[in-house]
Amino acid sequence: MDRSPAPRRPLLEALRGRVVTPPPVWLMRQAGRYLPEYRALRARARGFLELCFDPDLAVELSLQPIRRYPLDGAILFSDILVIPHALGVRVRFVEGEGPRLDPVRSAEAIRRLRREGVRERLQPVFETVRRLREELPAGVALIGFSGMPWTLAAYMVEGAGTREFLEARRFARACPDLFGELIDLLTQAVSDYLAAQVEAGAEVLQLFDSWAGVLPEDEFDRWVVAPARRILADLGRRHPEVPVIAFPRGAGTGYRRFAEAVSVAALALDTTVSLPWARRALALDCGKVLQGNLDPVALAVGGAALAGQVRRILETMQNLPFVFNLGHGVLPDTPPSHVAELLSHLQSMGRCAN
Amino acid sequence: MDRSPAPRRPLLEALRGRVVTPPPVWLMRQAGRYLPEYRALRARARGFLELCFDPDLAVELSLQPIRRYPLDGAILFSDILVIPHALGVRVRFVEGEGPRLDPVRSAEAIRRLRREGVRERLQPVFETVRRLREELPAGVALIGFSGMPWTLAAYMVEGAGTREFLEARRFARACPDLFGELIDLLTQAVSDYLAAQVEAGAEVLQLFDSWAGVLPEDEFDRWVVAPARRILADLGRRHPEVPVIAFPRGAGTGYRRFAEAVSVAALALDTTVSLPWARRALALDCGKVLQGNLDPVALAVGGAALAGQVRRILETMQNLPFVFNLGHGVLPDTPPSHVAELLSHLQSMGRCAN
Repeated sequence: MDRSPAPRRPLLEALRGRVVTPPPVWLMRQAGRYLPEYRALRARARGFLELCFDPDLAVELSLQPIRRYPLDGAILFSDILVIPHALGVRVRFVEGEGPRLDPVRSAEAIRRLRREGVRERLQPVFETVRRLREELPAGVALIGFSGMPWTLAAYMVEGAGTREFLEARRFARACPDLFGELIDLLTQAVSDYLAAQVEAGAEVLQLFDSWAGVLPEDEFDRWVVAPARRILADLGRRHPEVPVIAFPRGAGTGYRRFAEAVSVAALALDTTVSLPWARRALALDCGKVLQGNLDPVALAVGGAALAGQVRRILETMQNLPFVFNLGHGVLPDTPPSHVAELLSHLQSMGRCAN
Repeated sequence: MDRSPAPRRPLLEALRGRVVTPPPVWLMRQAGRYLPEYRALRARARGFLELCFDPDLAVELSLQPIRRYPLDGAILFSDILVIPHALGVRVRFVEGEGPRLDPVRSAEAIRRLRREGVRERLQPVFETVRRLREELPAGVALIGFSGMPWTLAAYMVEGAGTREFLEARRFARACPDLFGELIDLLTQAVSDYLAAQVEAGAEVLQLFDSWAGVLPEDEFDRWVVAPARRILADLGRRHPEVPVIAFPRGAGTGYRRFAEAVSVAALALDTTVSLPWARRALALDCGKVLQGNLDPVALAVGGAALAGQVRRILETMQNLPFVFNLGHGVLPDTPPSHVAELLSHLQSMGRCAN
C-alpha cells in the first residue's frame, strides 16, 4: 500500500468546500480553436464529431492545454451533441455556422429515437476518459461532462443553435406532454452517460444547460430544474463521491431556485451573474461552491482589462471555496499568451487576496 | 373650461402607482408584422426607415392595433435605430436578417458623427407624435420610446444584431474611454430625443436597452445603469410629470441594481424574469410599477398555454400596480385572433383576480 501523502488536488479540494489559495483554475473550451495545435489537428479530421469519437484524437486534444499551462483540471474533449447522435439523430457541424441536426418535431420522430444501445455507441468517449485518467499528471483532475436535457432537446427540436430557440419553445408550449417524453428520455440518457464517465475515470462532472437562459420561469422549473434534480438524485445514488458542477447558463435569478432545488456541489456562473449577489445568495445562503465567471472578452483583450477583471473576481470571492474559470468558453481569437498572463495574475494576486 | 370628469386612463393610473383592475395592457410590437394590414402597408414602402420617417405611414401603423383591439396604450411606430441614422450612420434593414449599419469602431468614426442638427433630422418622428396625440381616443395613452445608449452603441460598433455583440464588447473592454465618449454622446442624444417626444405629446416613455443582458456586471453598471441615471435625471428636470418605463432586457439579477439606482416609475420585465422575485425585489422593496412579462410564444400558441400563462401572471401580480404586456415583442406568426383571446382572458380573469 502506498502511504505517501496524496498529491495535492486543488480542484477537488475546492469542490469539496475547502478555501484553496490561489483558487484552482480551468477554462471552458481550454482545448479549442485558440490553440494552433488544435487547429492543426482539426484540419486533419474529416468532421467535428470524428474528433469526439476517435480516442487518439480526443485524448490528444484534451491534453494540449495541459501541456502548455499549469491548469488544475482537464476536461474531456467531446461535444454535448454526442447524445442526440447516439440516439440516432443526424448531426453535422457546418464550418462557421455551428451544428445542424435533423429536427425532431413529432411523436413519430421521438418514437424513432434509438433508445437501446446508447451506452454502446458512446463507448469511444468512455475509452477517451480511461486513457486520459492514465495520462494526466496526478494533480490535474479529470472533468467529464454532458449537455443537459433542455439544451439537448432544444437543439433536437430546433435543428440548430438559434438566438432564442423559438421552434423548441413553441413545441414545448404547444405539446408539453410530448416534449416531456423527450425530456424524460434525455434525462435517462444523460444520467447513464454521466455514470459511465465516472466509471471510466471522470473525477468531476460539469453539466451544461447552455440554453437555460431562454426559458420563462415555469418552463425553467419544469425543463431545467426538475430534470437536474432527477439526474443528481441518480448520480448521488450511483456515485456520491463525485462532485458535480451545474451550469444553467443565463438563468439570472433562476440560479437561486436552481441552487435551492438541486443537490450539486457547485454552480458555474455565466459572465453576466453579479458576483456579490452570487456570493450571498448561492454560496452563503445555499452552500454552493462557485465557479466562474471571467468575461472571455477580457481574456481576449488582455492587458489592464484582464488584470482588472481577475482582481475584481478574486476580491469578491475571498474566503470562499472557489474555482476560477471563464463565464463562457475561450473565444477562438484569444492569443494563447493571454492564458499564461491570466494564470500568472492568479498566482500573484491570488496569494495577496487571502 | 371643461369641467367634465377626465376620461379614465388606466395605463397612466397604473404607472402612477394605482392598482387598476383588470390591469391596463399594451403589447410590445403591437404594431407589426403579425397584422395583415401592417404587411400590406410595409410592402408599399421602399425601406423600413421610410416607414419611421413618413408621418402619414407611421401614424397609420401606430393606429392599426388600436382600431382592432381595446388596448390602453398606443406606442409610436418607429425604430430605435433612428438615432444612429440621425447621427449620420448609414442604416439599412435587410429582409429576414435585421439591421445593418456601417460600423463605428475608431476615434475618427466617432468624431465623424453629426452631433449638430440631430433634433431637426428627427422632426418627422415628432410630427408623428403630434398627429397621434390628436387622433388617439382619449382613454388610450400615447407611448414614446427610445433605444438606450448601450444598445445603440452596440449596434453601431457591431454593425448588426448578433447573438453576443462580441465586437462591441471587445471595443468597450479594449478602449473604455473612447467607448465612453460614444456612450456620452448617445446619452445626450437620447435625452434630447425623449424630451422632444414629450413636448410633441408623448404621455409615457419606454426606454429599450434590448442588449443589456449580454454585459458583465461591471459593464452593466457603467454602460446601462449610469447612462439611465443621467437620462432620468435630465427627464426629471424637464418633464417630471411623464412616467418612464425602463426595459433593461435580460438584466437578470441586475434588474435589482437598476431599480435601486434609477428613478424610473416602472420596469418592463423580460420573459425570463421570475414574477414572484420581481414582486418582492422590485415592486415591494424598490417601489417600482411592474410591466410584463407574458411569453410571446404562449401568445403565438394560444389556447390552454395562453390562458394558463395569463392566469399565472395575474395571480402573482394581484394587488400591485401592474401593466400587462409581453416579455418581448409579438412574434410575426402570431394569429391576430390570439390577441383578442388574450384581452378577453384579461377581462374575465382580471376581474376575478382582485
